[in-house]
Order: sequence, then C-alpha cells, then structure tokens
Amino acid sequence: MNHPVPTSLRREMPAPLLAALQARFGERLSTSHAMREHHGRDESSYDSMLPDAVIFAHSTEDVAAAVALCNEHRFPVIAYGTGTSLEGHILAVQGGLSIDLSQMNRVVAVNPEDLTVTVQPGVTRKQLNAEIKDTGLFFPIDPGADASIGGMAATRASGTNAVRYGTMRENVLALTVVTAQGKVIRTGTRAKKSSAGYDLTRLFVGSEGTLGIITEVTLKIYPQPEAISAAVCSFPDIGSAVNAVIQTIQMGVPVARVEFVDENSVRALNKYDKLTLPEKPLLLFEFHGSEPGVQEQADIVRQIADEHGAIGFEWATRPEDRSRLWQARHNAYFALLQLRAGCRAISTDCCVPISRLAECLLETKADLEREQVVHGIIGHVGDGNFHVQMLVDPNDPADIARAEGVNERMVTRAIAMQGTCTGEHGIGLHKIDFLVQECGEDTVDTMRTLKHALDPNNILNPGKVLRW
Amino acid sequence: MNHPVPTSLRREMPAPLLAALQARFGERLSTSHAMREHHGRDESSYDSMLPDAVIFAHSTEDVAAAVALCNEHRFPVIAYGTGTSLEGHILAVQGGLSIDLSQMNRVVAVNPEDLTVTVQPGVTRKQLNAEIKDTGLFFPIDPGADASIGGMAATRASGTNAVRYGTMRENVLALTVVTAQGKVIRTGTRAKKSSAGYDLTRLFVGSEGTLGIITEVTLKIYPQPEAISAAVCSFPDIGSAVNAVIQTIQMGVPVARVEFVDENSVRALNKYDKLTLPEKPLLLFEFHGSEPGVQEQADIVRQIADEHGAIGFEWATRPEDRSRLWQARHNAYFALLQLRAGCRAISTDCCVPISRLAECLLETKADLEREQVVHGIIGHVGDGNFHVQMLVDPNDPADIARAEGVNERMVTRAIAMQGTCTGEHGIGLHKIDFLVQECGEDTVDTMRTLKHALDPNNILNPGKVLRW
Repeated sequence: MNHPVPTSLRREMPAPLLAALQARFGERLSTSHAMREHHGRDESSYDSMLPDAVIFAHSTEDVAAAVALCNEHRFPVIAYGTGTSLEGHILAVQGGLSIDLSQMNRVVAVNPEDLTVTVQPGVTRKQLNAEIKDTGLFFPIDPGADASIGGMAATRASGTNAVRYGTMRENVLALTVVTAQGKVIRTGTRAKKSSAGYDLTRLFVGSEGTLGIITEVTLKIYPQPEAISAAVCSFPDIGSAVNAVIQTIQMGVPVARVEFVDENSVRALNKYDKLTLPEKPLLLFEFHGSEPGVQEQADIVRQIADEHGAIGFEWATRPEDRSRLWQARHNAYFALLQLRAGCRAISTDCCVPISRLAECLLETKADLEREQVVHGIIGHVGDGNFHVQMLVDPNDPADIARAEGVNERMVTRAIAMQGTCTGEHGIGLHKIDFLVQECGEDTVDTMRTLKHALDPNNILNPGKVLRW
Repeated sequence: MNHPVPTSLRREMPAPLLAALQARFGERLSTSHAMREHHGRDESSYDSMLPDAVIFAHSTEDVAAAVALCNEHRFPVIAYGTGTSLEGHILAVQGGLSIDLSQMNRVVAVNPEDLTVTVQPGVTRKQLNAEIKDTGLFFPIDPGADASIGGMAATRASGTNAVRYGTMRENVLALTVVTAQGKVIRTGTRAKKSSAGYDLTRLFVGSEGTLGIITEVTLKIYPQPEAISAAVCSFPDIGSAVNAVIQTIQMGVPVARVEFVDENSVRALNKYDKLTLPEKPLLLFEFHGSEPGVQEQADIVRQIADEHGAIGFEWATRPEDRSRLWQARHNAYFALLQLRAGCRAISTDCCVPISRLAECLLETKADLEREQVVHGIIGHVGDGNFHVQMLVDPNDPADIARAEGVNERMVTRAIAMQGTCTGEHGIGLHKIDFLVQECGEDTVDTMRTLKHALDPNNILNPGKVLRW
C-alpha cells in the first residue's frame, strides 16, 4: 500500500561512518537486506523504507557512541523497539542507522516501597509485569501490542487502562536520554513530584525519537488490586452507550477500563467466536479495588446502564469468567479482519471531549456507511478515544483513497470538537499535516524551534512529527 | 533579609518603550513606588527588587502587545499573579515590566460533562471552586495560599491533595501562552489525552514565566466526593508515622490527603490553640469516596496505624468535626511563628522517594537540633514531600547563615536519596545552583538550549531557573 512519502531528502550513509560503526559494533552491526527490511516497517499500512544499517545496542554508552558518530556525519538515526508503531514512525524516509534497543531488556531496579521501577528501553510491558509479579505490584499501561517501554514512552502510549491509571505522560517519572550530540542526560529523579526546572521528561515522552533517544525509563507502578471484576452489556444505540459512560465518569466511579465495541465488530465476533451477543453497541467494564469496592462500582454502573436501556448486563469476578467477557474485546481486531478476505486494516485514532463523543462516533459511522467502507469501531470511551478499523484492498488505490477520506474527515471533525488528531498512536509520518491543522502554524513553529535547537543537524528520526 | 542576588545585569527601561506602553495602556500602567514595591516582592525572605513599571492586563492581546514591545526593546517582562511564590520568582533582578494578570480573572468556560474548566490566569483557586460549586465538581489542587491558577501552573504547584489528584503537571490540559516574540499559541485541546506532537503544555507548566506567559488555562476538575472523612493520630516517633504512610500507599488506599506534623509544631499548636494533643509526630488523613468507601479506607488506615503504635486515633465525618481535626494542620504555620517573637520563617521544600523519607526527616531533624534552629516540620508525606519552617532573626546574618546551611545540607541529602531539591515551590532565584546539583550540567544545558531558542533576547523573567 502506498502513501506519498517525500524521499528527496534521502541521505546516503558515508563509507567512513559505516567503517567507524563496524569498528565499534563488529557483529552487532548488520547491513543484510533481511535485517534492514525487518527494521524498515511498522504496523502501519506504509510500505517499508529500509535503513542503511542496523546496530544492536547493549548500553546507553553504545547508543551515545552511535549517535555521536552519526551526528559527526550528519546522518539519520532511528530508534527501534518492537516495531509495533502505527503511523510509520520508524520508516527510514531519509535513510539512516536503525538502533535496535530490544537487547537492552533488563529491569534495572524495582523499588516496591516507592512504587517505582527502572527499566532499559527494550523491556516489554508483558515482560515487566512478569518480572515484578511477585512484588504484588503491576504496570497498568496496556496499548494492546506487547510494545517496548522505550517505544511506549516515545509515542506517549496509553490504551485500555488509561481512564484510571493515566497514560505514559502521567506514569514516566524520569528518563535517561541520549541527545543529538551523543551526550547522556537524566531528566528527573525518583521523587513522585518535582518543581525543579523545565519538564524535560514530558518533553521527551511523545517526541517519537526526534529530540533524543530514550535509554532508561523510571516508571510508576501500582498495587495489584485486591479484587477485579468485569461487566458487559449491550445498548440500543451508540448514544445510550456513550451517555452511560459519561454518567459513570461524572459520578467519579473509578472504573479501570471501559471499552466500546460497535455492532459491526460484535457481528464479526459472533461469527468468529461463535457467540450470540446482541448485535448492538457493547460496553465492557473492568473494576479494580477491594472486594466491597468492586461490588459497589458494579452496582452503580449497572444502575446507570439500566437507566440507559442496557440489555443483558452480566458481571463476573472469577478470572475465567472475566476472560470470557473480555474475549470479545481481545478478538475484535482479528474477527474484523475475517470480514473481508485479502484485506488489510487501516487503524485510525482520535480523541474528543467525552461530551462530543456520541456525535463524533455517529457522524463518522454515517460517513463510513455512505462510503461503504467495511469497518469496526472500538473505543477507550472513558477517555473519549476511539479507533475505526477500516478494511481496505491494499491493491486498490480507490479503496484506499475512500478510507483515507473518511479518516481525514474524522480527524477534522474531532479537531472541530476541541479534540485531538491522535489520542495515543502519535504523529509519525501520517499525521504531520493533521498536527498543523490541530495546533495551528504558530504552535507547530514553537515545536520546530525546539527541534532545531536540540537537533540542529536533523539526524534524529528526521521527517517525523513535523517538517524541518 | 539579604541573599546575594546578581544585579549587574540590571537593565534600564528605555524611554521610548515606556512611552509606547503608556500609549497602549494609559491608566492601566503605573510607575508609582508603592505599586512597584507591591510587585517587587513575594513571600520568600528576599528583599524586594522593584520592576520599573506595572501594567494591568485585561486580555491575551494586552499581554501579547506588552511582550512584543518589550522584546523589541530587549527589556524584561515578569508575569505577576498573587505574589505568593516562595523562592523569589517575581523579583525584578534585571529590572523589568511587571505584567499583573490579577484582573484577568474570568472563568471562561465550564464543561461539567467533560470534567474540564477553562480560566483566565488571574482566577484564584478559591474563586474557581466558589464559581463551579453548583456543578457538583471541584478543583482539588491546594497549595495553601489562595494562589492564581496561572501562577500555580507556572510553578507546577501541588499541595495537600496531590497524593490522590496529582499536581498541576497532571491537571493542566492545555494553555494559551504568549511567546517571547508576542505570538499567541495554544498548547493543547480539551481531549483528555493526546499523542499529538511535543508536550508544550508540560513544558510551560513549571517554567516560571521564563519561556512564555500563560494567559489561559484549561484544567481537569473532579466530582465532589459523596462523602469525606478525616482522621488524626499520633505516633511514638517519626519512623513509625512514615512507615504507616508507606504501608497505606503501598496497599493502594486512595487517601486524598495525608499530612505529617512534627512534635515541635504540635507543641506550638497546643500553646496557640490551647489544645492537649500528645506532643509527638502526628498524621492527619482525609478520605474521599462513597459512604462505605471512606469507612473502609478509615478502617484500613486505623489498622495500619495501630500496627505502628498509633496513639489516640480519632476520626470524623461531620464537616465541623473534620474542621476541628484539621485545625491543627491549618494553624501550624501561625502557631510556629509565635515561638520566637520578631522572627521570620524560612520555608524549605524537598521531596524524596517515600522509602527514604524517615531517614531524610531524621537526619534533617538532627541537623536542626545540632544547629539550634527553632523549627517545625510539616509534610505532604504521601508524596515524600516536606517543608521545614525555620524561624530566623532577619537582622542576624549568623542566624540566617545557620538556617541556609541546614537547608543546603537538607537539599544535598534529598538529592543523594534520588529526590529533588523542590517538590512544589520551584527554583526561582534561590535554587538555581541546587538545580545544577540535582540534574547535572548537561541536563541544565539542555534546559538552557530551550531557553535560548524560545527567548533569544532573554526578556522572559530573566535570572530565574537557570543562568543565561
């Protein structure tokens, strides 16, 4: 599938740089096509754009040495975690050295009393939770993919638990960062709060590798809840489902997750999983707390749901029953893919104030139907964030154009509703113009001033987030 | 009281600038000594340093016009809210125009369904809560003083409720900012989360007026809890009190407030308020939630407190009883001031990982006693943040030096424990060197790069946060 990507700025790796990197990294450097291909694509629908070489970093010093060499030669560097980004973040649009951080996968320190953990960037979220399980603590951010913590920080990821626990913005305490000059800085401490100077931590979180490369992350972690329960119910229409969510949030019920699944996705799931769910909009809830606490939350939510015409409210506290209820959510993506053979899914991402969510969903739905795009919608609705999965034929430009048109109108709609063009996937290559549309030229100019100041040679993941 | 402040960089206001400002602002510009004096001091122990003139802004356009004029003449501008900063933030060390934002005090929009509110920077936190009371929502950040929201954002303020609701870092959604060039930018939307580009909101939050002037703030607000209860108990020693807090936090009890008051402050309070509290370290808790929820929290905390040797656990749900319990906390500062006639209080501020809090408190206490500094300690201990109030004779340099020595050793200790030199008061004038000590030269250099890029003429509150 092809999107227009500017390639006129592609640089060639200078031979002396390659030689210097080979001298420094030996067998940890690869220029094989297979390796470059693997590092030149993500989970977006962009065709791959290969880096010139790949190195496997084992330490902050490795990263600093590689970046310093590339800076000397004014050659791009692109940090690579697990390759699960969704907007073309890691494509080597101007050529470059891919710095693979997946072997920097050590949990450096666990401080249970302080509810903090410090990890190398290649640690994945599932690995982290497996390693800290015995402490009775957990890291809640769950973007779906088993992404690396470094990548999650770099894209300001969030996901299903964000309604209660926040996003990477709220959960990163401090970073070690390699600057464009190859210097190593630490952006914070392990103190839970601080008013000490400019918030460099938050500046690098979400900067998508364009301002520095994250080589260590200190995170907040949380006590595993004493009790977890789940609930599921269907609604006659999207408006009723969203209004139930608004009321839940506004009453201060501390739901851990509240996910929306549209009737198309439910239909796909019934087929895929041989279920008999009502083919109506569905909400899935998860509650964390004490035994009486989760019971109380579920009771309140049930009452709110009933007031909004809920059908078939079910709730469950046993792990196996919870899994059954949530199975629908977990399988939604795969079930959808079955709807149209040979197709790829284009995933969208926008986020609006929750009071506008029903309107935004309904207008988007009408547009999808008008354009006859096969689709499903899932949403982290407690945050006003939703994703449309559009199934397109990768070989049919008209089909792709229709989907892109829907996406463009949806983003424009979200921005007009005081929302954002991306709730959690980031800008990457795909949303550079949407960022301008959202913020205005002067705001993007301020971002550009920061980019120019911190990376004057434009070597850090060039061509992403904004135009030079 | 005098601290060394560099004044060699003091600039004079050019006559054409004054004329242009007079033409633009008319009677809203003042050069009277009384007005300049009022705008040249904060609540720190610094002597006042007067701005050359004061204007009262009524709109973002006013601020933009004033900043653009000052930038043209390379002359400093200092934003002024309520003057309640604590580290010399608003002193005109290089001369300057004080832009008083207190008349920009309108609540611009309340969006109860979205739990957001947008205010002008001069709105104070008490005013905001009075104006939104009828919506059933509230803004929780409480730094003690009735500070302006703009000032609270600029210093990344927090206070007693932060343990549950976070700080200004977590609660500002978006800002309107006037840049050094007099441009107006918007840094975010009303969406609850976003991955759209660099996090300019967090960059300006805590930048103390040195990167831009905040002229509008969009905040998160919260449902007023259905029930509030309070508890108070004494402990045999500091270690027991802190360990009770650690266990409370680690068990995930969502306490809204947990405040520590040391035995000196309790002694002062007994005298001041004619109370008979045990002259031991004291903890005060506040719980927010449903009726059964706050009961459950209080039960758990009582059990934890008992395990740590608590004395006289009392709890209260009626507002008048809660006020009685919290009276001790509210009066601590004034009670302390009575301990030594004719003295001023120097307030300190550091924050450490909670596992190191007892150690940090005890070592600081020993130092205070060794140096015979009259003092009291209060702490937002759920966050590892505490303040020592030291009573010094403003006319005795040796006395001041002793207190500053204790502060310096305390900050050094906090940094060595992976903590920060300021939990919530900011850097201002007083902690510029501590910031370097905490972060290292390379990190402060990165901050300086941002300052140079955004404010190349060094007109925005120059001489604060870092050296040019």
